[in-house]
Amino acid sequence: MELLNSTLRDIQPIDKNWYALAQKRLDNLTKPPGSLGRLEEIAKRLVAITENLNPVIDKKVIFVFAGDHGVTEEGVSAYPQEVTKQMIFNFINGGAGINVLARHASADVVVIDLGVKHDFEKSIHISGNCYFVTRKIIYGTKNIKNYPAMTRNEAIKCIETGIEIAIEYANKSYKIFCTGEMGIGNTTPSSAIASLLTGKPISEVTGRGTGIDDILLRKKIMVIEKAILLNKPDISDPIDILSKVGGAEIGGIAGLILGASAKKIPVVIDGFISTAGALIAYSIEPNTKDYMFAAHNSVEKGHKAILDKIGIKPILDLDLRLGEGTGAALALTIIEAGLKIYKEMATFDEAGISKIELKI
Amino acid sequence: MELLNSTLRDIQPIDKNWYALAQKRLDNLTKPPGSLGRLEEIAKRLVAITENLNPVIDKKVIFVFAGDHGVTEEGVSAYPQEVTKQMIFNFINGGAGINVLARHASADVVVIDLGVKHDFEKSIHISGNCYFVTRKIIYGTKNIKNYPAMTRNEAIKCIETGIEIAIEYANKSYKIFCTGEMGIGNTTPSSAIASLLTGKPISEVTGRGTGIDDILLRKKIMVIEKAILLNKPDISDPIDILSKVGGAEIGGIAGLILGASAKKIPVVIDGFISTAGALIAYSIEPNTKDYMFAAHNSVEKGHKAILDKIGIKPILDLDLRLGEGTGAALALTIIEAGLKIYKEMATFDEAGISKIELKI
Repeated sequence: MELLNSTLRDIQPIDKNWYALAQKRLDNLTKPPGSLGRLEEIAKRLVAITENLNPVIDKKVIFVFAGDHGVTEEGVSAYPQEVTKQMIFNFINGGAGINVLARHASADVVVIDLGVKHDFEKSIHISGNCYFVTRKIIYGTKNIKNYPAMTRNEAIKCIETGIEIAIEYANKSYKIFCTGEMGIGNTTPSSAIASLLTGKPISEVTGRGTGIDDILLRKKIMVIEKAILLNKPDISDPIDILSKVGGAEIGGIAGLILGASAKKIPVVIDGFISTAGALIAYSIEPNTKDYMFAAHNSVEKGHKAILDKIGIKPILDLDLRLGEGTGAALALTIIEAGLKIYKEMATFDEAGISKIELKI
Repeated sequence: MELLNSTLRDIQPIDKNWYALAQKRLDNLTKPPGSLGRLEEIAKRLVAITENLNPVIDKKVIFVFAGDHGVTEEGVSAYPQEVTKQMIFNFINGGAGINVLARHASADVVVIDLGVKHDFEKSIHISGNCYFVTRKIIYGTKNIKNYPAMTRNEAIKCIETGIEIAIEYANKSYKIFCTGEMGIGNTTPSSAIASLLTGKPISEVTGRGTGIDDILLRKKIMVIEKAILLNKPDISDPIDILSKVGGAEIGGIAGLILGASAKKIPVVIDGFISTAGALIAYSIEPNTKDYMFAAHNSVEKGHKAILDKIGIKPILDLDLRLGEGTGAALALTIIEAGLKIYKEMATFDEAGISKIELKI
């Protein structure tokens, strides 16, 4: 709890005076004012987050937090629980979607086992741009229909491990973080969190995950209803929610975002599960919002409700619902483009171009 | 007219049998079926366009067609006409938005003067990834409020030059084309084309271009009304529309798309002006649609009306309104990501992962 508390003390809102300074440069670039829309907005926010008129995001990393979910025994996913472990080997071998898209974005991938129901060899550097780290806290959550997912201490440990990871990679000079996750069954706890913290009915924030049919979807909603009735999470206490109906990887993501915000590092939030983690972080400390970029608008029902609650607008809308950090990797290429526009375009003076009076 | 006619004979719809073949591979990749949404759709279309189960788009080029517009004397743009020429020097020096974003997408930029009111040195290879080519057809269009923009022969020459460029760069082994343009005043002819070919009122497809105010916007709409009343373009004849209220760069873009379609090369359409060129191409030969990727949803009013008319859905929505091909360059990074997913991800068998039965 000590690390969490000290991290919270370090999180400040971004200083919006940097926006005006960045805007001045943007309006001198050889283009009609504002004509690069969200690319300009991205550049401004990078300036304000890093408190640097010449931000650098050359070293990029995507964290794939992994955990298992006891609730899979209720049949809420189209895949069996062992696929979590199998997919981790797929990451390790470089064959998963996130490996491909991280290479595309020239980002490293760090897979972190917080709660998988399998013992991996410790902290192995794998191949290419992919690393694997074991920071085991639990061997899967308990089935939330019948028990709390984990203890309060375990939930805090998940968050603090996320914070430790943020600090470690900040110290390794990584300049921008992306969230991602792997955990068969993890849309179920994410929908529970979404419902509790947005106030929306469970049915409005529960979707098909990996692709379940109508009957299983109804069952999934009932399981979440029962989990909340049984565990009675305190909606004013995000850590209570995380421990009772959450998951290890969701806690890790929340912690990573808290740590990134304290370290003034921009953090790109992937899809539904990552955004559930972001909502935990935001509910603990609303100023984390200033450091978040929402990568994309997921197909998964409930994602938009969380984005709206936090008040962040997604960069992409490509009908994705894979997770792993794949949407964040794609958004990274757009964020980098925004920064390049800001840094590399010529000004009107440099190019000798007739400038119009700005009408702002 | 000979080249145009022979090109039209070569344009075939894509063979959708390739979709099923590509889908088979996509459904064997280690992800829930369909979970990479539009990335999968992009990969399938690249397979069908290139008629190759292993498509390659390593050599990428963005064509920036340039032309001036006599209608600027009506004050319909926030910038004076000479900015077209000045911006071409900016392209040549590598300082414009398109230079930055083309470098980001590892694409070459080829600036083609079809109708700028200035004599440049001929066909110079400039610096870095930017080339400049003079294929002068006109020294700007005439003011369409009072005259036809150009003659029918000039309009055909613009289209055929676009086709020649497509053939030339196909022969140089470029695998994917992007459109872009530069021409102060060119949203005015684009809105005229949009209104005539979508059937929507002029006021519904006319926007602020580089950023004009309400008074100038009203004037712009009136100028387009007068241009159409005076010139009486035949709405069943896209070449008549191009010659009477169009522009050289718009004709070049239409020709490039026709040539790309004949050569089975995917072509990424940038914003409003490029899409007006695409609408001319589509109206001449609807099968061109199969070869088009709509890069983004422009802020410019009227863009969506054209996209809907052609029936293509934009990849990005980033509030862009710069043109030059900037949106196409960004979309290129997403298209490339879609292809990498298709080609580089492991299959379930390769990764030894439990697969679910497909429910399609």
